Amino acid sequence: MAIIECIPNVSEGRRPEVVEAIAAAIRAVPGVRLLDYSSDAAHNRSVFTMAGDAAALEAAVLALYERAIAAIDVRSHTGEHPRMGAVDVVPFVPIEAATMETCVTLATDVAREVAGRFGVPVFLYEEAATSPARRNLEDIRRGEFEGLAAKMATAGWAPDFGPAQPHLSAGASAIGARMPLIAYNINLATDRLDVARKIAAAIRASSGGFRYVKAAGFALKGRGIVQVSMNLTNYEKTPIFRVFETVKREAERYGVSILESEIVGLVPAAALHAAAEYYLQLAGFKSDQILENKLK
Amino acid sequence: MAIIECIPNVSEGRRPEVVEAIAAAIRAVPGVRLLDYSSDAAHNRSVFTMAGDAAALEAAVLALYERAIAAIDVRSHTGEHPRMGAVDVVPFVPIEAATMETCVTLATDVAREVAGRFGVPVFLYEEAATSPARRNLEDIRRGEFEGLAAKMATAGWAPDFGPAQPHLSAGASAIGARMPLIAYNINLATDRLDVARKIAAAIRASSGGFRYVKAAGFALKGRGIVQVSMNLTNYEKTPIFRVFETVKREAERYGVSILESEIVGLVPAAALHAAAEYYLQLAGFKSDQILENKLK
Repeated sequence: MAIIECIPNVSEGRRPEVVEAIAAAIRAVPGVRLLDYSSDAAHNRSVFTMAGDAAALEAAVLALYERAIAAIDVRSHTGEHPRMGAVDVVPFVPIEAATMETCVTLATDVAREVAGRFGVPVFLYEEAATSPARRNLEDIRRGEFEGLAAKMATAGWAPDFGPAQPHLSAGASAIGARMPLIAYNINLATDRLDVARKIAAAIRASSGGFRYVKAAGFALKGRGIVQVSMNLTNYEKTPIFRVFETVKREAERYGVSILESEIVGLVPAAALHAAAEYYLQLAGFKSDQILENKLK
Repeated sequence: MAIIECIPNVSEGRRPEVVEAIAAAIRAVPGVRLLDYSSDAAHNRSVFTMAGDAAALEAAVLALYERAIAAIDVRSHTGEHPRMGAVDVVPFVPIEAATMETCVTLATDVAREVAGRFGVPVFLYEEAATSPARRNLEDIRRGEFEGLAAKMATAGWAPDFGPAQPHLSAGASAIGARMPLIAYNINLATDRLDVARKIAAAIRASSGGFRYVKAAGFALKGRGIVQVSMNLTNYEKTPIFRVFETVKREAERYGVSILESEIVGLVPAAALHAAAEYYLQLAGFKSDQILENKLK
């Protein structure tokens, strides 16, 4: 059975009763599991993580929209995080036995339904994008809600679904499909911040590194060490082990060793299995050789 | 929920109707999944792989005994594989969220029940053994069915449960608890059989190597290369990555590289995750960070 993850970001992080009502609406949908949800008051934003099959997730996302639109007026929303709508972003992510194609189809179906049912304009993004200019969420959201009406009136910024102007109180949404993100940090056995920054620059896409790596160098002051902090946005095309080995080699250039690495939050099992296959030089390994997969 | 695997070995591999009847008896037990079963005519032996919780597995093993004892007379059994009973060996293996202690308790419960219900003497082995002399299955089974009555009459070979002499037609059984086995081979980029044999000798327990490694060197003639073929009998205490790195280092001594390695059959996910943790120097990683584990 194809399991998909969906992580809607909603522009409300200060009124627990609104957040709880949305969580309850998700939980009420059969076949959907609400895995996690959390709110950030400074961002005034909440993130819900749920999983299920395509039909169940579509029902849950529509239930979330209904609650969010009834409770949130983005005209009076303030917070540190950029946003353009009451339901700001809805990514679908393939997990077990699910393909990216399925997620793109689901994102498109949900976008059409959201636009039709609630009159909210929707932009499809990342793998679901209908043009290269709309792949990056940052490009779609640039200008935020306050600049949205003017932006949508310019050439090339008609939404993929829905009206040609923002919903009065709910703004617009980006709905899309993407690979799971892996938050991955490598700690270096040195306090030289310049080394962490140089390595981050060497490996991130924006300055010529790996296509699916975002990276920055930080000092971990309490520990007297530095960190290369990364987001890996496609672990199949830019695998963890290649990033690790490249950081290790770059660090050697400065006489620095890797102290340890860490995965923050969740990681798909396949990303770990790929590392084991690589280092053990495993030939012909198939995921149905994993004992636990037989028990499903 | 604690999932346990059980892999009974039955002394019948030539009469499909007997094997199918046993498989049907296992399948009829609610809460048990028959993952695999296969027969070897030369060995005249069949291996059933099932999984479930403790209570369901106990019921399935008793159903298997009932069918096997009714159909198999070990006095007329011939085959290449050593055996001492109609149901020869019954190992319980901890899988998801199951502990070895649970498996030892289950093995002991099943042994008591088998002895009481069918009058078959049972020896507890490996982790369930009641003395060091009975840990190794080979020691218990030495002399096979034909030598069993005489062996059981000597000091120290009274069974753990059941009568002091073999069952007339069903012999005796070994029931125990052990870690999952991993069949793991490393192929070397050379045709020098002496190198594979020297490395096998260096890493196996019997000649001074790792405690939980059995190994031999073979030629893969069709490919013009050699193989270090291994069974890893406790991947927690002797992990795959340490075996791989040691073989790699030993091979360097002879100017030989590792071509590839392979896992034959099933491997517990934790064995692969441990390799990823080792090579990526992951600190503080917990298995509940694996996305798929959240979906269970």
